[in-house]
Amino acid sequence: MKAIKPSLAKGTRDFTPVEMEKRNHIYNTLKTIFKKYGYSEIQTPSFENLSTLTGKYGDEGDKLIFKILNSGDYLSKAPEKLLEEKKSTELISSISEKALRYDLTVPFARYVVMHQHEITLPFKRFQIQPVWRADRPQRGRYREFYQCDVDVVGSDSLLNEAEFILIYQEALTKLGLQDFNIKLNNRKILSGIAEVVGKPELIVDMTVAIDKLDKIGLEGVNKELLERGFTEEDLAVLKPIIELSGTNLEKLTALKSVLVDSAVGLQGIAEIETVFDYLQKLGQGSLLEKIVEVDITLARGLNYYTGCIFEVKTNEVQMGSIGGGGRYDDLTGMFGLKDLTGVGVSFGADRIYDVLEELNLFPPSNAERTKVLIINFDKELEGFTLPLLYQLRDAGIAAELYPAAVKLKKQMSYADAKQVPYVLLIGDEEVRSGELSLKNMESGEQEKLGIAALIEKLK
Amino acid sequence: MKAIKPSLAKGTRDFTPVEMEKRNHIYNTLKTIFKKYGYSEIQTPSFENLSTLTGKYGDEGDKLIFKILNSGDYLSKAPEKLLEEKKSTELISSISEKALRYDLTVPFARYVVMHQHEITLPFKRFQIQPVWRADRPQRGRYREFYQCDVDVVGSDSLLNEAEFILIYQEALTKLGLQDFNIKLNNRKILSGIAEVVGKPELIVDMTVAIDKLDKIGLEGVNKELLERGFTEEDLAVLKPIIELSGTNLEKLTALKSVLVDSAVGLQGIAEIETVFDYLQKLGQGSLLEKIVEVDITLARGLNYYTGCIFEVKTNEVQMGSIGGGGRYDDLTGMFGLKDLTGVGVSFGADRIYDVLEELNLFPPSNAERTKVLIINFDKELEGFTLPLLYQLRDAGIAAELYPAAVKLKKQMSYADAKQVPYVLLIGDEEVRSGELSLKNMESGEQEKLGIAALIEKLK
Repeated sequence: MKAIKPSLAKGTRDFTPVEMEKRNHIYNTLKTIFKKYGYSEIQTPSFENLSTLTGKYGDEGDKLIFKILNSGDYLSKAPEKLLEEKKSTELISSISEKALRYDLTVPFARYVVMHQHEITLPFKRFQIQPVWRADRPQRGRYREFYQCDVDVVGSDSLLNEAEFILIYQEALTKLGLQDFNIKLNNRKILSGIAEVVGKPELIVDMTVAIDKLDKIGLEGVNKELLERGFTEEDLAVLKPIIELSGTNLEKLTALKSVLVDSAVGLQGIAEIETVFDYLQKLGQGSLLEKIVEVDITLARGLNYYTGCIFEVKTNEVQMGSIGGGGRYDDLTGMFGLKDLTGVGVSFGADRIYDVLEELNLFPPSNAERTKVLIINFDKELEGFTLPLLYQLRDAGIAAELYPAAVKLKKQMSYADAKQVPYVLLIGDEEVRSGELSLKNMESGEQEKLGIAALIEKLK
Repeated sequence: MKAIKPSLAKGTRDFTPVEMEKRNHIYNTLKTIFKKYGYSEIQTPSFENLSTLTGKYGDEGDKLIFKILNSGDYLSKAPEKLLEEKKSTELISSISEKALRYDLTVPFARYVVMHQHEITLPFKRFQIQPVWRADRPQRGRYREFYQCDVDVVGSDSLLNEAEFILIYQEALTKLGLQDFNIKLNNRKILSGIAEVVGKPELIVDMTVAIDKLDKIGLEGVNKELLERGFTEEDLAVLKPIIELSGTNLEKLTALKSVLVDSAVGLQGIAEIETVFDYLQKLGQGSLLEKIVEVDITLARGLNYYTGCIFEVKTNEVQMGSIGGGGRYDDLTGMFGLKDLTGVGVSFGADRIYDVLEELNLFPPSNAERTKVLIINFDKELEGFTLPLLYQLRDAGIAAELYPAAVKLKKQMSYADAKQVPYVLLIGDEEVRSGELSLKNMESGEQEKLGIAALIEKLK
C-alpha cells in the first residue's frame, strides 16, 4: 500500500482530548438544563432519504445538501440523455437516494410524524448532533458542525416560550457569560405592520429591509424599501416603528397604538405580553429589564415562523447570534400531519465554544483527566506498583502506571502533556517504608503518604 | 409543497428518549471506565477524503464505503468515455472526493499522523462515534451503527494488553453481564504453527480453516485444510494443536512443546505469559481461571494484527462477539509514519444494547427523567404553581407544569407516558393551606407536604 499524505476533508475538524473536554462541558451543561425543564433526548440518523430533505430549505439549501452516491452500479438507472449532456443536477435523483442531514428540524418533523402513535403530546425533545452543509468553509464556518435543538410540539401554551427564555438565561449564565441579550419578536407583529402600511403582500420585502437597520441605518433601509415597492407615504408610517426605542413596555405601548387597527398585529403584541406575564409569575420579571429585548427588526427565516421569534447575542465578544428559534405552526405538514404547532430554540455550540474560548471561561481543570501517574522506575517494582494501581482505580481514581521503565524525564513530560495533577514516585525506599512520594505537578511540592492517606487525598 | 410519506433511509434508526437513556447508560459506563484507565476522548469528522479510506479495507470493504457526491457540477470533470460506457466504479474518483467513515481505526491512524507533533506518546484515546457501511441491512445489522474503540499507540508494553482485559471485565460486569469470555490468541503463535507445519506461506488459509472449528468440527476443518494445500502429514501435526484443551496453563504448556523449534511461536507464547503475569500482579489472577481463555482458533482479521488478539463473547445470550481487538505493529504506516505500534479493543455498543435488553439488565428507572409534573387544574392557579415550578428547578429537580389546564386524564396520561414518578395536584385548597398533594405514580399513594418538605423529598 502506498503511503498517502493524510489530510482532513475540507471544512471538517478533529477534536483533540482537550477540545473534547471543552465541548463536553458545553453539551453536559446544556443537557442538564434541558432535562431539568422536562426535555428528553432523541437522535436521528446521519443520513435521510433524499426526498425527505429536498425542497425544505429553498433552492440554495438544496444545493448545500451533501448527497450520498448509491451503492453498486449507481449509473444503471441514469437516463442516457442526461448522462450525455452531463446534466449534473437533473441526474442526482437517479444516482443518489440518500443525503446527510442539513439541520435537526426536518429530521425531527419526520420523527414526529413517523412516531406519532407512540408519542404523547406535548412532546418535548432535545437533540445534539452534527449537521452537514456543502458551504464554502471559512473562519468559524464548517461543513460539519453541531446543533443543539430544544423543541416542544403539540402545545400552543406561551409558557413554552417563557421557559425557553429561562433556558437560555440559565444555560448561558452557567457557562459563564455575563452580558447577553435575548431578542424577541413576533411574526404576527410583522404581519400587522405590513397590514397597517397597506402592503401585506410585501411583508417579506419589508422585513428583509428592516432587518438591515443595524448595518445600513434608517436611510439605507428607506432606500431599500422604496426599491422593493413601498412609497414615501409608507415610509412615513413605518418610520416610528423602525425607530422604536425605550423599554420593552414603552415599545409595546407604542406598537399597540400603531397597530390598533390590525387584529393580527395586536394578537402578536398580546402574545409577547403573555410571555412577559409568565416570566413575572416565574419570579423572573427582572430579565425583562436587562436581558430580554423586544426587537421588531428581528426576522430569522420569516416564512417559517408564525409566532414568537428569538435570537440571542453576546455583547462580550464580536460574534453573530449564538442561538435563535421561534414558533412554527406547521412543522409536520410537509410530511402530511397537519396543524401540529411547535416552538423551539437552538444553541450554536460551535460559536458558543469560540466565545467561551475567547473569554477564557472554560473551567481550568477537569474531572475527565488522569489524576495520578505512577512513575515506572524499574520493572522489578511492578510487583508493588501494579497492586497499588489496581487499588487506586478500585477507589474510583483515574490512575496510570507509565507502561515502561524509561527515563524519568520522558515520564514527567508525559504527565505534563496530559496535565496530570499528581505523580507518584516509588523507589525501593518507598516500597520498604510504605510511605509513597506524591508530587503535586502544579506547585512542585512533594509529600510522603501511606496508601490509605494517598487514596483519601486523591479521591 | 406536496406532503410526502416520511420514511427512514434503509438500515438506519431513530433513537427514542427511552432508547437514548439506555444507550447513554452504556456509553457513560464505558466512558467512566476508559477515563479511569487514563484514556482520553477524541472525535474525528464523519467524512474523510475518499483517498484516506480507499484501499484500507480490501476490495469488498471499498464497495461498502458510502461515497459523497461532489457539490455543484460534479460531472464536469468526469471523463466522457467512462460516462458513455456507464463505468460506475471507475467514475467514482472523478465525481466523489469524500466518503463516510467505515470504522474508527483508519481515521484514528490519520489523526495520529496529522497530530504527531502535538501528541506525547504513549497516546491513549477512546472514541465513541457512529460508522457507516453500505451492507445489506438485516436483523441486528445496520448501515449506521456505533463503535466504541479504545487504543494506545506508541507503547509496546504488554501491560496495555492486560489492562484491556481488565477494562472488558470491569465494563461488562458493571453493565450487569455475569457470564462472558475474553478469548485471547497471538498472531505469532499462528505464525509459529504455520512454520512448524512447514507451510508459513499458508498461514492465512490455515487460520481461516481452523477458525471454523466451532461450526464445522475437526473433520470439516481437515477437509478444508486439504483443499487449501495442506497434506495428510500436516494434518497429523496440526491435530493436537487444533484440539488443544484444558486450562490456559495446560494449553500453553502443550503449545510450548509443539512450537519448541519456532522462535516466533515461542515469542507469542511468552507474550501471553507476560499478560497473564501482569494480571496476577494486578491481583486479578482469578480471571485466568474463569473469564480469560487462550483460543488458538481465534483469528480476527489476521493480516492486520501482529501480536495479541482478543475477542469477547457472552454466554448468556445467543450473539456474535460483543468486542474484540488486538495489537498491530504498523497502524500509521499507511499514512507514512512507520513503526508505531498500537494495541486496541472495541466494544460493539449496538450488540451490547441488544444483550442487555434481552437479559433485562437496563436500570429500571433513571435520573434522566422529569421527576415531578405539576397538574394544571386552572390557569388562575398559575400565580401559585409557576413560582413553585421555578423553586423546584432551582433546587435541581427536573420538573414540569403541564402547559395548559386540560382534562386531568390527559395530564395523567402524559405523566404515565413519560414515566414521571410523581405528580403534584394543586387546587384551591392546597393553595390556601400550603400543603401540597404529591402522588406517587407507581404506588398510587398520595401525601400532603409543605414546600420545603416537598423539595427535600424530590431532591
